[in-house]
Amino acid sequence: MKISELAERSGVPVATVKYYIREGMLPRGVVSSATRAEYDDDHLARLKLIAALADVRGLPLARVRDILALVDDPGPDALTTLGRAVSALPPYVGADRVDHPRARAAIDDLGLTYDGDFTAVAQLEEALGALEDAGLAADPQTLRRYGDAMRTVAAEEIAPMSAMSLDEAVSYAVLGTALYEPVMLALRRLAHHHLLATRTEP
Amino acid sequence: MKISELAERSGVPVATVKYYIREGMLPRGVVSSATRAEYDDDHLARLKLIAALADVRGLPLARVRDILALVDDPGPDALTTLGRAVSALPPYVGADRVDHPRARAAIDDLGLTYDGDFTAVAQLEEALGALEDAGLAADPQTLRRYGDAMRTVAAEEIAPMSAMSLDEAVSYAVLGTALYEPVMLALRRLAHHHLLATRTEP
Repeated sequence: MKISELAERSGVPVATVKYYIREGMLPRGVVSSATRAEYDDDHLARLKLIAALADVRGLPLARVRDILALVDDPGPDALTTLGRAVSALPPYVGADRVDHPRARAAIDDLGLTYDGDFTAVAQLEEALGALEDAGLAADPQTLRRYGDAMRTVAAEEIAPMSAMSLDEAVSYAVLGTALYEPVMLALRRLAHHHLLATRTEP
Repeated sequence: MKISELAERSGVPVATVKYYIREGMLPRGVVSSATRAEYDDDHLARLKLIAALADVRGLPLARVRDILALVDDPGPDALTTLGRAVSALPPYVGADRVDHPRARAAIDDLGLTYDGDFTAVAQLEEALGALEDAGLAADPQTLRRYGDAMRTVAAEEIAPMSAMSLDEAVSYAVLGTALYEPVMLALRRLAHHHLLATRTEP
């Protein structure tokens, strides 16, 4: 297909497609004449992936590039690759901490795996610190409320990955992590609203 | 107590305390001499609330002020007040939509209450549109995974509110909505990581 058809089918403007090509994020088409290059379905799939990543709230283009680099050239094993890919997502917390005492205690209590290099550990430490500062509960029983719910959700989310190739799994992990988050947060607020709206006052 | 003690006990620098007073977010102390004002435990509690709100990621100071105004002067009923307070939180989505077809279908399917004025409806619509653009599943079965988990979580979160006054409930709803979100998201990523790390490869 021509670049104009590629643009139309992906919903990405031609100028932006050219930008992604110049930046090396999208491979060049096969030159078929002095003024024309041909693109195929692999180009279309790649462009849709870039567009989806570019649309993630708070994800800078430099991080989109990092994720694409991991899709193209995965790490030594799936867990490392997925860990690096998910670490490219916001929120970005300071990496200067050496220990994460609150997160470590919570992770142990929930029976999860502690790995200080995985960025979600630092994210949890920061989040638990904010609860403490605000005087909100962060005791094991309260945290189990969230931990148990997320474990159930995560198990269902992980299930389809065993049938995927590594590059499919990287895209799924990154997009799935980023794009189901706002769905879940909106549904939490809607559940609060529903419960308050239907509550029978004593 | 003196302003220096107020600063020390709250962890907020004196200059910032003075700024909150100038901005009308924190009431002035009682003047006890030409160069001295006295502050009490109400000042300390208010200052801790401001500090906790100011610490919420992505919450601009103008919105902190809006939330404080609702604590001071609540709306006609609890549901309206809480809805307004939670609407001051990010993510901020365009309010120009008149209909939310994806969100309406999902809310109906999950048995929640549809209220087009509640901002989480527009947030859900945007989030479902992003899933669609990225080619990720947004069918009723997939959404129920998140809806059911959030309903369970929300019911436990709402429970303590029946014992609170309205201004306590507003603070709890706003801070709880904002500050448990990052905890939940970090735990979801940690659950993914744990499940992948402990998975037995076939």
